[in-house]
Amino acid sequence: MSRAVRFHEFGSADVLKIEEVHLGQPGPDEILMSVEAIGLNRAEVVFREGKYLERAVNFPSRIGYEASGIVEAIGQGVKDFKPGDKVSTIPAFSMAKYGVYGDAAIVPAAAVAHYPDNLDKFQATAIWMQYLTAYGALLEYGKMTEKDVVVITAGSSSVGFAAVELVNCVGATSIVTTRTQQKKQALLDSGAKHVIVTDEEDLAERVMEITAGKGASIMFDPVAGPMLKSLADASADQATIFEYGALSMTTTPYPLMIALKKGLNVRGYTLFEITGDKEKLHRAKSYIYEKLKTGAIKPVLDKTFKLENIADAHKYMESNEQLGKILVSVN
Amino acid sequence: MSRAVRFHEFGSADVLKIEEVHLGQPGPDEILMSVEAIGLNRAEVVFREGKYLERAVNFPSRIGYEASGIVEAIGQGVKDFKPGDKVSTIPAFSMAKYGVYGDAAIVPAAAVAHYPDNLDKFQATAIWMQYLTAYGALLEYGKMTEKDVVVITAGSSSVGFAAVELVNCVGATSIVTTRTQQKKQALLDSGAKHVIVTDEEDLAERVMEITAGKGASIMFDPVAGPMLKSLADASADQATIFEYGALSMTTTPYPLMIALKKGLNVRGYTLFEITGDKEKLHRAKSYIYEKLKTGAIKPVLDKTFKLENIADAHKYMESNEQLGKILVSVN
Repeated sequence: MSRAVRFHEFGSADVLKIEEVHLGQPGPDEILMSVEAIGLNRAEVVFREGKYLERAVNFPSRIGYEASGIVEAIGQGVKDFKPGDKVSTIPAFSMAKYGVYGDAAIVPAAAVAHYPDNLDKFQATAIWMQYLTAYGALLEYGKMTEKDVVVITAGSSSVGFAAVELVNCVGATSIVTTRTQQKKQALLDSGAKHVIVTDEEDLAERVMEITAGKGASIMFDPVAGPMLKSLADASADQATIFEYGALSMTTTPYPLMIALKKGLNVRGYTLFEITGDKEKLHRAKSYIYEKLKTGAIKPVLDKTFKLENIADAHKYMESNEQLGKILVSVN
Repeated sequence: MSRAVRFHEFGSADVLKIEEVHLGQPGPDEILMSVEAIGLNRAEVVFREGKYLERAVNFPSRIGYEASGIVEAIGQGVKDFKPGDKVSTIPAFSMAKYGVYGDAAIVPAAAVAHYPDNLDKFQATAIWMQYLTAYGALLEYGKMTEKDVVVITAGSSSVGFAAVELVNCVGATSIVTTRTQQKKQALLDSGAKHVIVTDEEDLAERVMEITAGKGASIMFDPVAGPMLKSLADASADQATIFEYGALSMTTTPYPLMIALKKGLNVRGYTLFEITGDKEKLHRAKSYIYEKLKTGAIKPVLDKTFKLENIADAHKYMESNEQLGKILVSVN
């Protein structure tokens, strides 16, 4: 028997329960892994609330995208992994079906990857969601070059930190937003070139100041709502605004007149465009693996919780106090 | 002295007055042309109302983007034109400064072009606004190929007809929307592959039917407002929705969740992105000139008004009864 986090109804963090489950053996093209560490994502909070792109269809539902651990068994047709391999998961599956919160998980073999030796089990849980999300927008679609000025909102999230690292990898200029002074220094220390404190400073005004009136060429935003208008105001002509989340949970007015004047592209985006495309995923994985191996990028880790305290870990994520990845240690 | 249409305040069609003006001689890089015919655009209605991208700054203001006629004089530095040349205008100037409604106009030489011999003076006024607008979105940015399914809203406008012609030029599939049955047959006759009557049929449902559930890959829409959500519903994954106008005059909600799920591009666009870029304009002009010369595309013309009745011509445009270009004959 394994321990798994499941929930029997949508709701607050307290709906998460640790339960005994029988996982059985991996099916064709699946692997069974023991889980050593789990990385938390905002997607899981929203999934738990019943507001995510994917909705749990049967209760109790499993949950969780990112875990690292050891391959215990492989299903029919699995070629790239063998028992004993150290792997971590790529969020390219249904959470309801394959959710990885627990001490073991069965996942599709196509959704796991070996991780570089220079990473520990915690860092290994903080690779694919954050770097694939940032890579897909900024590099695969955004074709970012050193000439780009990139505005990164919600900069203290794990994806925010990852985006700053990729901006620095290509030598572009990052402008990171955060609501209060509290995290400003940490963001600068982690490599952000400029930080705008949105409770105190006007986003568009500051971006125009930094760019000598030209505006930013790429925006990378999981907030939406009224933020979209601010980003449009801060945009250069023909900028691309990537919307990759719905954190504001309010309606999002489309800034039509500014979009017409500036020729703006507002691009809805999730990493599933990358994970669902073999070729794009391969390109992204190679790039990220290489950068991790050389140390050019390195996951920023926040607090570690115990599996029994998974509800507290979710509450902590909802507090927005974190800087980088919130972790769960298993055993 | 010349006769020019001017207005002294923003308002309904009746603010348009025919007045005697002294044009003088063309300045450097300008030409003076006698105007034989004028083509009307929705932009001019909105400009007259004070709601266009450009706003008249001084009254009385001139107005008008498209005219055909004869070069009468050239300013210093003008090389490509000589008196006697038959030309028509490209809307690449300030209407307030250069507006062409009248029996003569001074315009930048960069904003006029010779037109093919097989076009008459009326057809010649109906080239650049409509074909450049459609070309820029569908070909320059949209990279349309024969595999694309293109939804064209407001299909009975001059730009709508032009878009259908360009879709047919590359062998893609057009789906044109119109509000009532009234224009359906005319749209089919003019080359539209499918016509959706939006007062009677659900846009997304019909597009999904036509595309076997896949959705359309390019949307070309001057309406915005709630139309954007309908277009997102009708989109294929990773479709591009070009918004090139604000006809609905209501707020435009951004369909965030659909955009995330489908990876949609919502691209604000005006032809000024093309007219303001020498290289892009050259590419577009060559393509359009060639297609006009061979008869592959041919402007669809509606009613012709006399210059004295310019206010009636504007009222007719506002009635939305037209099919293609509304014209004004001068002299």
